[in-house]
Amino acid sequence: MPQTKDDLHHSAAHLLAAAVLDLWPDTRRAIGPPIKNGFYYDFEFSQPISDADLPKIEKKMRELLSTWKGFVKKTVTKEEALALFPDNPYKRELIEEFSKDSAELTIYQSGEYSDLCRGGHVEDPEHTLTHFKLLSVAGAYWRGNEKNTMLTRIYGTVFPSAEELNAHLLQLESAKERDHRKLGKELDLFFFSPLVGGGLPLFTPKGTILRNTLDDFVWELRKKSGYERVDIPHLTRKELYEKSGHWDKFKDQLFTITTREKHVLALKPMNCPHHIQIYARKQWSYRELPVRYASTTKVYRDEQSGELSGLARVRAFTQDDAHVFCRSNDIKNEIENVWDIVESFNKASGFPLSIRLSLHDPKSPEEYLGSRETWNDAEGKLREIVKEHKVQATEGLGEASFYGPKIDFMSTDSLGREWQVATIQLDMNLPERFDLSCVNEEGKPERIVMIHAAIMGSIERYLAVLIEHFGGAFPLWLSPVQVKVLSVGALQSTYAKEVHKKLKDAGIRSEIDVTDETLGKKIRNAKLEKVPYFLVLGEREEKNGTVTVESRSGKKSESFSLRALIESLGKEVEEKRV
Amino acid sequence: MPQTKDDLHHSAAHLLAAAVLDLWPDTRRAIGPPIKNGFYYDFEFSQPISDADLPKIEKKMRELLSTWKGFVKKTVTKEEALALFPDNPYKRELIEEFSKDSAELTIYQSGEYSDLCRGGHVEDPEHTLTHFKLLSVAGAYWRGNEKNTMLTRIYGTVFPSAEELNAHLLQLESAKERDHRKLGKELDLFFFSPLVGGGLPLFTPKGTILRNTLDDFVWELRKKSGYERVDIPHLTRKELYEKSGHWDKFKDQLFTITTREKHVLALKPMNCPHHIQIYARKQWSYRELPVRYASTTKVYRDEQSGELSGLARVRAFTQDDAHVFCRSNDIKNEIENVWDIVESFNKASGFPLSIRLSLHDPKSPEEYLGSRETWNDAEGKLREIVKEHKVQATEGLGEASFYGPKIDFMSTDSLGREWQVATIQLDMNLPERFDLSCVNEEGKPERIVMIHAAIMGSIERYLAVLIEHFGGAFPLWLSPVQVKVLSVGALQSTYAKEVHKKLKDAGIRSEIDVTDETLGKKIRNAKLEKVPYFLVLGEREEKNGTVTVESRSGKKSESFSLRALIESLGKEVEEKRV
Repeated sequence: MPQTKDDLHHSAAHLLAAAVLDLWPDTRRAIGPPIKNGFYYDFEFSQPISDADLPKIEKKMRELLSTWKGFVKKTVTKEEALALFPDNPYKRELIEEFSKDSAELTIYQSGEYSDLCRGGHVEDPEHTLTHFKLLSVAGAYWRGNEKNTMLTRIYGTVFPSAEELNAHLLQLESAKERDHRKLGKELDLFFFSPLVGGGLPLFTPKGTILRNTLDDFVWELRKKSGYERVDIPHLTRKELYEKSGHWDKFKDQLFTITTREKHVLALKPMNCPHHIQIYARKQWSYRELPVRYASTTKVYRDEQSGELSGLARVRAFTQDDAHVFCRSNDIKNEIENVWDIVESFNKASGFPLSIRLSLHDPKSPEEYLGSRETWNDAEGKLREIVKEHKVQATEGLGEASFYGPKIDFMSTDSLGREWQVATIQLDMNLPERFDLSCVNEEGKPERIVMIHAAIMGSIERYLAVLIEHFGGAFPLWLSPVQVKVLSVGALQSTYAKEVHKKLKDAGIRSEIDVTDETLGKKIRNAKLEKVPYFLVLGEREEKNGTVTVESRSGKKSESFSLRALIESLGKEVEEKRV
Repeated sequence: MPQTKDDLHHSAAHLLAAAVLDLWPDTRRAIGPPIKNGFYYDFEFSQPISDADLPKIEKKMRELLSTWKGFVKKTVTKEEALALFPDNPYKRELIEEFSKDSAELTIYQSGEYSDLCRGGHVEDPEHTLTHFKLLSVAGAYWRGNEKNTMLTRIYGTVFPSAEELNAHLLQLESAKERDHRKLGKELDLFFFSPLVGGGLPLFTPKGTILRNTLDDFVWELRKKSGYERVDIPHLTRKELYEKSGHWDKFKDQLFTITTREKHVLALKPMNCPHHIQIYARKQWSYRELPVRYASTTKVYRDEQSGELSGLARVRAFTQDDAHVFCRSNDIKNEIENVWDIVESFNKASGFPLSIRLSLHDPKSPEEYLGSRETWNDAEGKLREIVKEHKVQATEGLGEASFYGPKIDFMSTDSLGREWQVATIQLDMNLPERFDLSCVNEEGKPERIVMIHAAIMGSIERYLAVLIEHFGGAFPLWLSPVQVKVLSVGALQSTYAKEVHKKLKDAGIRSEIDVTDETLGKKIRNAKLEKVPYFLVLGEREEKNGTVTVESRSGKKSESFSLRALIESLGKEVEEKRV
């Protein structure tokens, strides 16, 4: 039987648990599954454990490994299994649960260690598990439920060869260097304040330039395609979400408010019902359709503290949201319009896109609004559009929204990680719920359809990906600081200020450094700040009225007239060169 | 003794109550004070009353007036007074209250009617009160408290002469025509949805163009003055407002949320504490100051339903807010900077500005943060700046913010009504509370000051004033639709579409009407929509490649080449001509 990655990862989890029990015998084991690129095991320790303990555990794992010649399977009854874990509530809970499905349970043993386990192991652990590394210690609730005991989770990774292990560790190291939380702080882009609270990011002037530059670009593309901006409040009465169906689906994640007059309001977790209200304010003729509304606006979700992660998972995020209200025969055209915008936009970020078709799960119709026919019809339309685009699309069953199927655009960042960046959703259900129509050629009301079309989705998450993708070295058009003007000595500070002012007047985001530091130090600083270009202004430059341009990429320095520089920078920005 | 407006208004209130009691004898009277331009009286009726009853009441007032030769004053004891109102809880409550201050109470009688009253009447009611008019019926809680009985309030107005009365009624009529709630609907700028809720306006594409055009202009002016944009969430932990002092002052008006993890959050009712957190993220050198942060962002306040009024009083409004963090010796310069922005901005709206200096009330020091010295210092600085500007400023005691004095800019709209449009607030208290400092020339921490500088204040309220000021006929640079292209007949629709496209490509907000309607109807529609210019395209225009331009103001129509028109419109927009 071929051995899978999961077999490798899962076997290493056994080895980790064996070492932990050997070192701290009164530890209680919970579960140790394989995950992408590695494994973890959750324990209830009787004393605290930290990253500092990992080398000791690794050493013990290596010691034990020499005795692991194979995994021996043993079939036991429920009673026999319970007898093996007299004092372990986690394993006992699992045994009770597993024994509902099957009268026989399995125990796998290697060396002195045995564990309750459904199997899936490598054949020769002694020689197969050698290339492992423990990575970190974290807290995790038993079964992921905050009401349960907090356990200690130890993460590790394992590969078939030293080369693969080292490549992976190097990638992890690089990811750590590029971590948007680290770069966000170093480049002064955003931060969290304890007084404001977790998951509620504050953006500095530099971070705000990034946000606005991206959003302005989306709007520029949308405006050309006939979109109009509308403005909506972040609050609504609960009744709006009862009607839309969001109240039932998202109740737990809604921030709700009881007013002094005892009305129940909610902070919006999405914008569709608000945009729908704007459409529904008047009667429409088919001649006026499609109507396309766009808003860049924050939405709020009551995420749990343990789930928050930098900008990637927050309680407040900004959607560059849009909804198209149109007739059935406009669907294809409108979706292709959005597709074009998504492509133009991501080209400028250098993200290659792949497509995923997110469909409903026919086995759980209760999770979705609307009839099977409506779903099949909508999904058929999306498949057809994907097919005509001649692209490969993976299909994800059960990944649709509760109101309709989606085309998701996935991008791969420079570290090879996949992220969803844009989504086009076809929705035949909310128009039904809100009775949205237009008056058709026969003068009769006709049900319309909606297309949900976010380009970045969440600006915060998009920024998180972007920061990591570029490692903070943004292309010129996006850089919060585009040029830094450095004077060689005190004598050039007047000339430097003059150049700085002219750059700013030309609309270039320029900063200036005329401090007493050495030129070397000034250049090092500019490079640390990942400024695309810096100008070195010394005696010669002042005399000739020129600037010497160096770049963060270390390209050979060049001399320019200021006018030529401004023109060249303008062109690079205009073309959004990556 | 000279008779004041209040005497006139108050006397008419007596006459109103006399007529009501004559018509419906079991009505209970509450209070009937004079107000600006008129009077009201609150009643508890035993049957419903509406605007339709006003003519009947007016008729009765005229009948009674012939018997009103004067007001006769009578002094009574508390017991005598109570005996006069055996079954009236309102008057009895007032009697109990008044008799605390004085042993003697006064009753005024004219004709058959007498009322508990402190006095202040005209001498010859029969000939002085003839020019009155009842205006409307509304609900009002006893003593303005929602926990009390809802009474029926009847409003009226009265003037010394028929001319003055008619002029006032005409102005009311005109105000009704210009009412931003009426125009907002007619011009399709904004609306309220019952499902979203009261006080939470939704803006259509046209309304959103107005908002964004105004806000873009503010940002253009601010950018030139060295402001930077920052981005903040609408939520915060309660702790931020406990520290700032807003929790104590604004508790009742805050929308609060308890998260699923049981933290208490609040929706922000202002932005200063958030901007302060951004300033406080790092240590500043005096060389980096002033720092100027701007955000256009919505704030939320739990207003009571009865207080809501179109866009003028809402639960969600957008502040074009900014805060300057600077040293004491920057104050003058920075305030003058804001003053310049306020002037440039309001010039483009055609608003003449007057100045009010809002000071603290030295009699209620408990209402304000900080010491008397700090207040005197801050108020002295503002007085000096106003003086140097050589403008007349009225002073408003007790109108300061709780953290500092303000310069308020008041504008008068085309109906003569006064509105606050911008405010500059000097704040030496929040920097103290949040320990905001910079490192000064000696390397020591130095307390800084803050300047709060909103230009429109609330975009919603500013829009309400603007809509009424222009009666919906906005200047070209602001108009949601700048040009409407009208074809004379079906033959010109291709030419019309071509012209429309060229206008749009040139960045002009153009709409097109190539329906089968007559030209007369098309022109009437364009005028109803208050579009500044409309182009009439007939056979002659198509042949010559020209456009005939007419304007909503009815100026003589002119023939232009399209290129010349685009140039002329561009110039009018660029100069923001009113």
